[in-house]
Amino acid sequence: MSDVLTRLARVIESRVDGDPSVSHVASLISEGPRKCTEKFGEEAIEAIVASSGNETDSLVGEAADVMFHLLVMLAAHGIRLEDVLAELERREGKSGIREKQERHGSG
Amino acid sequence: MSDVLTRLARVIESRVDGDPSVSHVASLISEGPRKCTEKFGEEAIEAIVASSGNETDSLVGEAADVMFHLLVMLAAHGIRLEDVLAELERREGKSGIREKQERHGSG
Amino acid sequence: MSDVLTRLARVIESRVDGDPSVSHVASLISEGPRKCTEKFGEEAIEAIVASSGNETDSLVGEAADVMFHLLVMLAAHGIRLEDVLAELERREGKSGIREKQERHGSG
Amino acid sequence: MSDVLTRLARVIESRVDGDPSVSHVASLISEGPRKCTEKFGEEAIEAIVASSGNETDSLVGEAADVMFHLLVMLAAHGIRLEDVLAELERREGKSGIREKQERHGSG
Repeated sequence: MSDVLTRLARVIESRVDGDPSVSHVASLISEGPRKCTEKFGEEAIEAIVASSGNETDSLVGEAADVMFHLLVMLAAHGIRLEDVLAELERREGKSGIREKQERHGSG
Repeated sequence: MSDVLTRLARVIESRVDGDPSVSHVASLISEGPRKCTEKFGEEAIEAIVASSGNETDSLVGEAADVMFHLLVMLAAHGIRLEDVLAELERREGKSGIREKQERHGSG
Repeated sequence: MSDVLTRLARVIESRVDGDPSVSHVASLISEGPRKCTEKFGEEAIEAIVASSGNETDSLVGEAADVMFHLLVMLAAHGIRLEDVLAELERREGKSGIREKQERHGSG
Repeated sequence: MSDVLTRLARVIESRVDGDPSVSHVASLISEGPRKCTEKFGEEAIEAIVASSGNETDSLVGEAADVMFHLLVMLAAHGIRLEDVLAELERREGKSGIREKQERHGSG
């Protein structure tokens, strides 16, 4: 199911040079990384407000907005979802090693 | 490759009732949703600062932090990654319909 | 010159029960503290983006927006500028004491 | 009473070239505008979390933190409190003109 993120990233990347008058994403990206950063920030704030108010229902939608606009902000810099996932995998490996060490004891 | 997100979400959820003295995530979540929200906010700010300064290299790492702490904040509210992905899929369906309508022309 | 802040706070407070159709501030506050918090967050993000991009000219205007919407958010909770200034004065006193101790040496 | 802000701004500005090992503000500013921006962002998030949770008591302290770290961030760019207050006064004048026009009726 997490393939929806990959599909979303592909759609967003395909809009980078798209027609701003047709696509919302193309329109955002055509305004430059600065605008996309402000938009991501706005969505992050809305998620924080929903989370702080324990509005769990609306938090799901706000989290989806955060993911979407994180991908748009990254695309505006030429960064792909895969770059971020590779970084998470790299850390996963490290944390796996750390866990193994903990299991085998080191203190 | 996006399965790393699913694995990460499973690890985080498995830590919700974990021992705070052993796991960083368990420690964060044991402090409550409020603390997890502040932490997510901090990471969002760092991503915004990196993006605004066009520091694309560090932006990859900051985006990974944002995803990680978004999942932790959601877990603190009992929300799962799948809930957010389902919401993105729901929108994908809608946007597909809209695109089809656009393709068939509307003026 | 810092009296402009006091005057601004008085204007904002006088709009708390004002006509939303006439006053921008009354309109914001009539939507409740949640909306005012989102608006403050938006302005904080814009200041952060301007500061991170070293856009010192626009940062002055963004900082003015932050102060304005901080006052609106506080007014939505019934908090006055004077409450915040009193807190800053309280800390000033403390920090004065700490500095005096440092001057008289304690190490 | 709003003179506390002016005094605070003077103290912060006097620390710009101060000894980082003695003064907290000098230490922050010596790390550069980027670090001061992140710190301002952190404090803005804490104010947003407190406001969203209707924690009015802690909101006063968080708002004081926001003002303090806004001044530090500005000082790191060589911007003075007076620059921001002048901008607020400039807008006050404009808004005064608009109010006068409204008073003389236009509908």
